[in-house]
Amino acid sequence: MSKVLTTTPRQDGFRMPAEWEPHIGCWMLWPERSDNWRNGAKPAQHAFAAVAAAIAQGEPVTVCASPAQYLIAREMLDPAVRVVEMTSNDSWIRDCGPTFVVNDGGQVRGIDWKFNAWGGLAGGLYFPWDQDDLVGEKVIELERDDRYAPDFILEGGSIDVDGEGTLLTTEECLLNPNRNPDKSREQIEQYLKDYLNLKKILWLKKGVYLDETSGHVDNFCRFVAPGEVVLTWTEDRSDPQYEISADALERLKGATDAKGRPLKIHKLVGPKPVLITKEEAAGVDKVAGTLPRESGDRLAASYVNFYIANKVIVMPYFNDAADVPVQQMLAKLFPTRRIIAVPGREILLGGGNIHCITQQEPLGRRVVQMAGAA
Amino acid sequence: MSKVLTTTPRQDGFRMPAEWEPHIGCWMLWPERSDNWRNGAKPAQHAFAAVAAAIAQGEPVTVCASPAQYLIAREMLDPAVRVVEMTSNDSWIRDCGPTFVVNDGGQVRGIDWKFNAWGGLAGGLYFPWDQDDLVGEKVIELERDDRYAPDFILEGGSIDVDGEGTLLTTEECLLNPNRNPDKSREQIEQYLKDYLNLKKILWLKKGVYLDETSGHVDNFCRFVAPGEVVLTWTEDRSDPQYEISADALERLKGATDAKGRPLKIHKLVGPKPVLITKEEAAGVDKVAGTLPRESGDRLAASYVNFYIANKVIVMPYFNDAADVPVQQMLAKLFPTRRIIAVPGREILLGGGNIHCITQQEPLGRRVVQMAGAA
Repeated sequence: MSKVLTTTPRQDGFRMPAEWEPHIGCWMLWPERSDNWRNGAKPAQHAFAAVAAAIAQGEPVTVCASPAQYLIAREMLDPAVRVVEMTSNDSWIRDCGPTFVVNDGGQVRGIDWKFNAWGGLAGGLYFPWDQDDLVGEKVIELERDDRYAPDFILEGGSIDVDGEGTLLTTEECLLNPNRNPDKSREQIEQYLKDYLNLKKILWLKKGVYLDETSGHVDNFCRFVAPGEVVLTWTEDRSDPQYEISADALERLKGATDAKGRPLKIHKLVGPKPVLITKEEAAGVDKVAGTLPRESGDRLAASYVNFYIANKVIVMPYFNDAADVPVQQMLAKLFPTRRIIAVPGREILLGGGNIHCITQQEPLGRRVVQMAGAA
Repeated sequence: MSKVLTTTPRQDGFRMPAEWEPHIGCWMLWPERSDNWRNGAKPAQHAFAAVAAAIAQGEPVTVCASPAQYLIAREMLDPAVRVVEMTSNDSWIRDCGPTFVVNDGGQVRGIDWKFNAWGGLAGGLYFPWDQDDLVGEKVIELERDDRYAPDFILEGGSIDVDGEGTLLTTEECLLNPNRNPDKSREQIEQYLKDYLNLKKILWLKKGVYLDETSGHVDNFCRFVAPGEVVLTWTEDRSDPQYEISADALERLKGATDAKGRPLKIHKLVGPKPVLITKEEAAGVDKVAGTLPRESGDRLAASYVNFYIANKVIVMPYFNDAADVPVQQMLAKLFPTRRIIAVPGREILLGGGNIHCITQQEPLGRRVVQMAGAA
């Protein structure tokens, strides 16, 4: 059904839209594996359900669940959410799912990147990842879209675009030899430019301290509008995060985007360091080959990991003094959207947050089909 | 996503359309279980792929495959066919899938009957059937349709409608105590009338000789137009089929449809008896609890088991002298459709044929979404 295209989106006049452009909906994967999610993934499932219900206030949401979890997901999720069967190895559709591109006529196509669980056998987080790698293809086929299938490993969370030719990423991730070791920085830039139709790549050095994704930019620094970014920040110079954020700030200050604009930078001060408790660690099954969750480990908590839906922003909160100021700042940055804060800790315990567990699908010129609607 | 409705289609002004009314597409399930399909289901998979490719010449086809078979199905199926992941216990979507209903405004809804593998623990064909029973719900949810969920066991192959208020069925199946033992004939009639919006039920006694479905009408006698039916026939009075078909002929001759019309009856002479060979039987895994396939068993071969697609009819052939005359007769009965004959034996070996492995979805007022199309 999905035609596999051997051209590139750039050749065909397709580009990756910014996340704030209109969506036809949002995709998620249902968490299940007990060697990553504590207590049989039950707390995480409630957290994912809250995220899905919040996004569903702004746009249609589809949650994909394994055969074993289908009825459980259907029962726990808001009735407004659509549930479809889909097997995966874990639940990070931002990273293993498709990237959608559109053209000026509003046509939509999918890019089915290769996925190796954030580093494959050289530092990846689990094995195998074969079902995760099929998620992009399956979602694109469900949507009857045509598909680009580049021989290139990329996680959606490692990039962020302004929809106008500029991409943000980190050297820590994209130049990591456990992703595309046979490709130089220049070749990687060319892949991004060809598949996302970009003019300029802005390279930051690292992502959030101890982020197990090798420093995904979507947890660290993202566009909120053309020419405007938010950056994870701390004022604590003794925190290893300080040096990372300060380096990014310097780079961003000296940069211009694809249209030649300097960047307006909004510092998003993070919560106080979030550590795994003994009880939380004890709830995770220890399995050889899967990244362990140890008591006292610091988690890569960041408010930057929010999702931009059609009518709402869904952000994580951490029961931290910074929660409300951040929500107020996002309200100013996104004046046409309601800011919904949902508990982020249980998602963070699995290694990411709200942006990591979601993937937007652009509206293009498609009509939303609500077949049962009057 | 799918709202569960507690009213009935009749109350809401919905009816089951005839199969020749326009479809948005056709659903199938990919065969896999080696205790029903010989040689690891490989010959059946090729047969199903031929059916899907033939139907795809007339309308969009979606084949649902288990996680384990997803890539294999994608590789073996025509590129025009859409493949989605869906778990099932076997591959008879006519019987375990949804029945779609429409209203005069072109809205579409699904009926998610209960399913018990043709008789449950009292003569059913395998255990468990839990995943089959979810197929209706999953398909309806994928389509974002609202859903009726009657507490009533019904297989789609046990009924046939003219879209104008008349239903054909058999006593052998619908009155079998292993389906809805707590309901009388009158109560069963009322369920059918309420959910399919009917005025008249035409009861035949039995279906095709040795049909393991308890005599499904879709393998025996079906509407081909309002006021016209085809009936499985034999001229061999020593064949047990003769008495069954003759009884049905008498009943049909004496009947009128919901609009008061007498029925025009077209006899469809079947192929010579089709028996399982020793080699075929040897290819099926023997598993306690699943109906065995024994060498010499007679199969319920019938040409009535065809599928009516938008632009084509897909019928089984059996390398029998009757193949061509039947194809010519169907060409006369469906003058606006091309008649495609595909090999039926491998599907028959599993217990049914082309109509049993397909389920149409009416077009209603929906626009076919081909998101990738220009």
